Amino acid sequence: MILDIIVPVSTDIWNKGIESEAEKIKGQDTKVRVTSLTKGPVSIESEYDEVLAGPHAVSAAEELEKNGSNGIIIYCFGEPGLHACKEKLSIPVVGIREAAVSMAKILGDRIGVISTIGNAVPRHARALRREVYKVVAVDMPVLDFVNVEELEKRIEIKIRELIDYGCDVVVLGCGSMLDMDIERMKDKYGIPIVIPLNAAVAVCEFLMKNNLRQSRLAYPFPPEKEIK
Amino acid sequence: MILDIIVPVSTDIWNKGIESEAEKIKGQDTKVRVTSLTKGPVSIESEYDEVLAGPHAVSAAEELEKNGSNGIIIYCFGEPGLHACKEKLSIPVVGIREAAVSMAKILGDRIGVISTIGNAVPRHARALRREVYKVVAVDMPVLDFVNVEELEKRIEIKIRELIDYGCDVVVLGCGSMLDMDIERMKDKYGIPIVIPLNAAVAVCEFLMKNNLRQSRLAYPFPPEKEIK
Amino acid sequence: MILDIIVPVSTDIWNKGIESEAEKIKGQDTKVRVTSLTKGPVSIESEYDEVLAGPHAVSAAEELEKNGSNGIIIYCFGEPGLHACKEKLSIPVVGIREAAVSMAKILGDRIGVISTIGNAVPRHARALRREVYKVVAVDMPVLDFVNVEELEKRIEIKIRELIDYGCDVVVLGCGSMLDMDIERMKDKYGIPIVIPLNAAVAVCEFLMKNNLRQSRLAYPFPPEKEIK
Amino acid sequence: MILDIIVPVSTDIWNKGIESEAEKIKGQDTKVRVTSLTKGPVSIESEYDEVLAGPHAVSAAEELEKNGSNGIIIYCFGEPGLHACKEKLSIPVVGIREAAVSMAKILGDRIGVISTIGNAVPRHARALRREVYKVVAVDMPVLDFVNVEELEKRIEIKIRELIDYGCDVVVLGCGSMLDMDIERMKDKYGIPIVIPLNAAVAVCEFLMKNNLRQSRLAYPFPPEKEIK
Amino acid sequence: MILDIIVPVSTDIWNKGIESEAEKIKGQDTKVRVTSLTKGPVSIESEYDEVLAGPHAVSAAEELEKNGSNGIIIYCFGEPGLHACKEKLSIPVVGIREAAVSMAKILGDRIGVISTIGNAVPRHARALRREVYKVVAVDMPVLDFVNVEELEKRIEIKIRELIDYGCDVVVLGCGSMLDMDIERMKDKYGIPIVIPLNAAVAVCEFLMKNNLRQSRLAYPFPPEKEIK
Amino acid sequence: MILDIIVPVSTDIWNKGIESEAEKIKGQDTKVRVTSLTKGPVSIESEYDEVLAGPHAVSAAEELEKNGSNGIIIYCFGEPGLHACKEKLSIPVVGIREAAVSMAKILGDRIGVISTIGNAVPRHARALRREVYKVVAVDMPVLDFVNVEELEKRIEIKIRELIDYGCDVVVLGCGSMLDMDIERMKDKYGIPIVIPLNAAVAVCEFLMKNNLRQSRLAYPFPPEKEIK
Repeated sequence: MILDIIVPVSTDIWNKGIESEAEKIKGQDTKVRVTSLTKGPVSIESEYDEVLAGPHAVSAAEELEKNGSNGIIIYCFGEPGLHACKEKLSIPVVGIREAAVSMAKILGDRIGVISTIGNAVPRHARALRREVYKVVAVDMPVLDFVNVEELEKRIEIKIRELIDYGCDVVVLGCGSMLDMDIERMKDKYGIPIVIPLNAAVAVCEFLMKNNLRQSRLAYPFPPEKEIK
Repeated sequence: MILDIIVPVSTDIWNKGIESEAEKIKGQDTKVRVTSLTKGPVSIESEYDEVLAGPHAVSAAEELEKNGSNGIIIYCFGEPGLHACKEKLSIPVVGIREAAVSMAKILGDRIGVISTIGNAVPRHARALRREVYKVVAVDMPVLDFVNVEELEKRIEIKIRELIDYGCDVVVLGCGSMLDMDIERMKDKYGIPIVIPLNAAVAVCEFLMKNNLRQSRLAYPFPPEKEIK
Repeated sequence: MILDIIVPVSTDIWNKGIESEAEKIKGQDTKVRVTSLTKGPVSIESEYDEVLAGPHAVSAAEELEKNGSNGIIIYCFGEPGLHACKEKLSIPVVGIREAAVSMAKILGDRIGVISTIGNAVPRHARALRREVYKVVAVDMPVLDFVNVEELEKRIEIKIRELIDYGCDVVVLGCGSMLDMDIERMKDKYGIPIVIPLNAAVAVCEFLMKNNLRQSRLAYPFPPEKEIK
Repeated sequence: MILDIIVPVSTDIWNKGIESEAEKIKGQDTKVRVTSLTKGPVSIESEYDEVLAGPHAVSAAEELEKNGSNGIIIYCFGEPGLHACKEKLSIPVVGIREAAVSMAKILGDRIGVISTIGNAVPRHARALRREVYKVVAVDMPVLDFVNVEELEKRIEIKIRELIDYGCDVVVLGCGSMLDMDIERMKDKYGIPIVIPLNAAVAVCEFLMKNNLRQSRLAYPFPPEKEIK
Repeated sequence: MILDIIVPVSTDIWNKGIESEAEKIKGQDTKVRVTSLTKGPVSIESEYDEVLAGPHAVSAAEELEKNGSNGIIIYCFGEPGLHACKEKLSIPVVGIREAAVSMAKILGDRIGVISTIGNAVPRHARALRREVYKVVAVDMPVLDFVNVEELEKRIEIKIRELIDYGCDVVVLGCGSMLDMDIERMKDKYGIPIVIPLNAAVAVCEFLMKNNLRQSRLAYPFPPEKEIK
Repeated sequence: MILDIIVPVSTDIWNKGIESEAEKIKGQDTKVRVTSLTKGPVSIESEYDEVLAGPHAVSAAEELEKNGSNGIIIYCFGEPGLHACKEKLSIPVVGIREAAVSMAKILGDRIGVISTIGNAVPRHARALRREVYKVVAVDMPVLDFVNVEELEKRIEIKIRELIDYGCDVVVLGCGSMLDMDIERMKDKYGIPIVIPLNAAVAVCEFLMKNNLRQSRLAYPFPPEKEIK
């Protein structure tokens, strides 16, 4: 089974890290492929970025389906092009936000999400307003997340803030929050922390194994038409 | 005041009709411009179409803002690129779906929407699930709406269906449902029928006149970044 | 087209200010008439006041309809008699609260309302509990709003409070908050401020122009009967 | 303890029946007084009727409080003036709708309400849209309810309709549905039927016995002011 | 009419206090019996305790029904076995949580609940998340409530906290909060305080008097089967 | 990793079938153990059955945790004892209902559940009223499900019924709906069908692999106390 992870940004700096994490958690029968884009924004931090990335993400997904993919993860918390892929493809397509939040809700009642820059908070809060209890931000641009030490320090501050606010589960709200010592933080703060990559791989493998994909009744195939 | 209507499809067959309708209802100080796209799908009937149209709609909006626009209407019930425009532009941007539904809710309690092809129902029902009571479809592709007689006949059937279901206000769920005798239908069925064009022009003129635009706290400006 | 504004209080001290504001924003074809009551409470600051004002507001509306009115605004955030008028009249009737909140929701996600005395907060919070995010009060009786300087100072304090609480749009929650420098405040705090008068005029003009009125299926005509 | 029942219509034809029913169910220490109005509509079948009845109901309540009342029931499913009374009075005030629906929700999950004329359905459905599952009507004007046989026949038809629709508890949605053989219907259809009078007497007696009344924080005292 | 109160804990230290309180508030025709369990946990402070107490509570209820009971109160805010009893018994069964919250909602809009140990907060908040505004805890184990003075001191602190948070009605969230001077606290803080015992007795007496019990359509009789 | 499946009924007739299904879908590193109870009801078809099964399910879970379990599935759609286990155990505990519904919501918008006997519908509808769109029943007692042919015939009828009602995903609402040709039905009706066993194994394996378990902030450890 081939599980494709589309990183919908025009840089491949995250691919290796994502692939290596995915390798650790995937099932034995799963082959993981990680693809980033050559066009579109270099990171996704607004609905503007999502719209610009959307067609390239969808186009990559269509290509991967033709190349034998059995399931696709849209690897960005903003999930650009996700519903379009659900309509257009005949294999399961999963976004990391929906997967992470679904798993988090099994662990507790009040989900807290840690996002990137402050500007990203309203868009995630809007999308998740009936799903999560609070969205906060580390106030770092995604591309600075290569500075893992600083990121981890700020994540810890936000975990404490979410706990004080009454949250009982933490979801990392960006696919590029990698390489941190999550186990240490879970122990230190006594709260489950859901990593979107891991949730999405589990959900997608479940769908692939069970021959399930998004309902055609909810996501009908788009009518053929001229596209200029 | 210049009010720009972006018809986010790669055909200009609707422009003249929209412009002529808009002329009838606009305020005296408003100058209306209607713009369609040169790229993207020729009609919008799925989230797939919306994603492909999105960047072109946003790009058109950015261009129009530079060319002196005072307010923009995204003239498609799927509102491709709407939130991205709200973030990126400093003039008010309004979608016809949000405008029509807002006005409809002042007129009654249970809004019924009449959409295009059956495939379009789940996407609008998903977007509006807490706002409207029922979404139905005339089961005609948008490009066939030039056959106004057939469209009108089918619209009437759906109005009756919505009333029987318990709806008390009807919203036309597509920007290309033009040239029908709405007054006759309102009288015949005794139910208000909201035309999205007219609602959106009213909302956008209100915002322009009152120097209002989408909140920067809800739609922060997108961070500058490399876009390939 | 005659647009009637009913100020449902037994004083005419606000009429001139309302009329002069309405003149600035109305369409060219609209003639505005402002009517206050001769009976009932001198201001509306409780549900008790609303109930006492209700029949007089409805009676004024019935009279105005007979005198050629094409649309009526119930000009009080408590909207006394609004639904009764929607039932009884055959012309559109709009309340300033529903109009202001509808417009505000197009501008952002978390609406904050600034009301009059503290006692008014629970009644508006109850009526709007699924529509707005927070209701606060300037703690001034309505009749003291003639002291515009003091009012404006207190409004500014409340705008800051609403922003700190997480609101992204402000609605002025009383029809008598007139003559302030709203533009200055919008610039200073970077948040849209919706003036109920302006929203209601826009909504009512939209309805009049489009030959729309409240649905008879939602607001059936009251059965004729003996009234002692 | 004096429990006052205000029948907010300008006829006393129901008073005796209500009093005799109340006598059967009241506690030993409760003295029941039934008061109807001398002004306002002869029956309440619309929000228009409610607004016209409101001030007279409130005025009657104020009078009764002065005359030693310990608790008041607003005896109409539309509850005219209820919140105004909750603000103005220092004794508990209960509406029959809120009492009946509260009790019904302890008995099942999906409450069905049987109202009077068809025109009354939207106003109750609007008020109860998050509380009850379905509102239907016997399509008889209230004043015809003196024809108990016809009323009972129609009530039975509606009970079956509500059960078929999925309701599991029935609430009689009008105070004038008296003198029917409710026990027979409960047995025949196997569904609980809540009589508003009985629910309201129970709730009001509970509040009186426990020295409870509506919260001043939710229903602040109306500010003193000139009323013309 | 025999009203049975099941205290679902394996101690009878509360029985006498409950009985004496119930005697004060019950109707003249009601005979109160208080029963505690001989098996299961000595107090209920978790869902774990609720599960262990459940079968014993249900078994006691079945026994009491055979012994002539006309109505049963499950006297614990966690309501162990309540729905099972509603299914199994043919007499009305009421939980103190549902009764107290129903009555509280008639008194105001934002209910605050005061629970026992901090650990009990999430389970009540989960059960009541759409019903109440805030759940807090006095941080005392139930068995320490015999120290009424300390309990009362802590309750007062929590009342202030709930008022500051915006609550307008207080519900005591445990059946063992007895013997306090509630009247003094209601006066001092100006907020209604609902005692679950009193609410449940009122609701249960209402059901008994009116020959009502939980709907069989919502709580069908459990199918007969082998139980090992 | 040891994954334990507790079948909370006092019969082991389902164990072998469950184990063989679980073997097909589990990950390579997972060892599955299936345990049924020796006490309690022989099947779970009511809240009454759930309450009687609860303590035995919890006790089995406690035993299995001591015997090296790494994760537990409560294998009944009624999930008896689930929250108590989440509190008491330090390993992840998952119910098949929550797992199946979570996965279903990723596949579509309107979930339909197929339950066992008609009596089971209200209890699942109550538990899932904000999660699923419709609950129906095959009207067969669980113990008759060994007649797979009849079961499958009835399931098909219900799938058609759910689709006609507007559902877009089907969840099998009982753990004993085994051995059917699900793939054939998915193809025939064009709708995803979620099997609770498979969803729960996926969720539980995800939690075990990621060292996650229910939040202590949502499910605090039950206080130690005397249990008689």
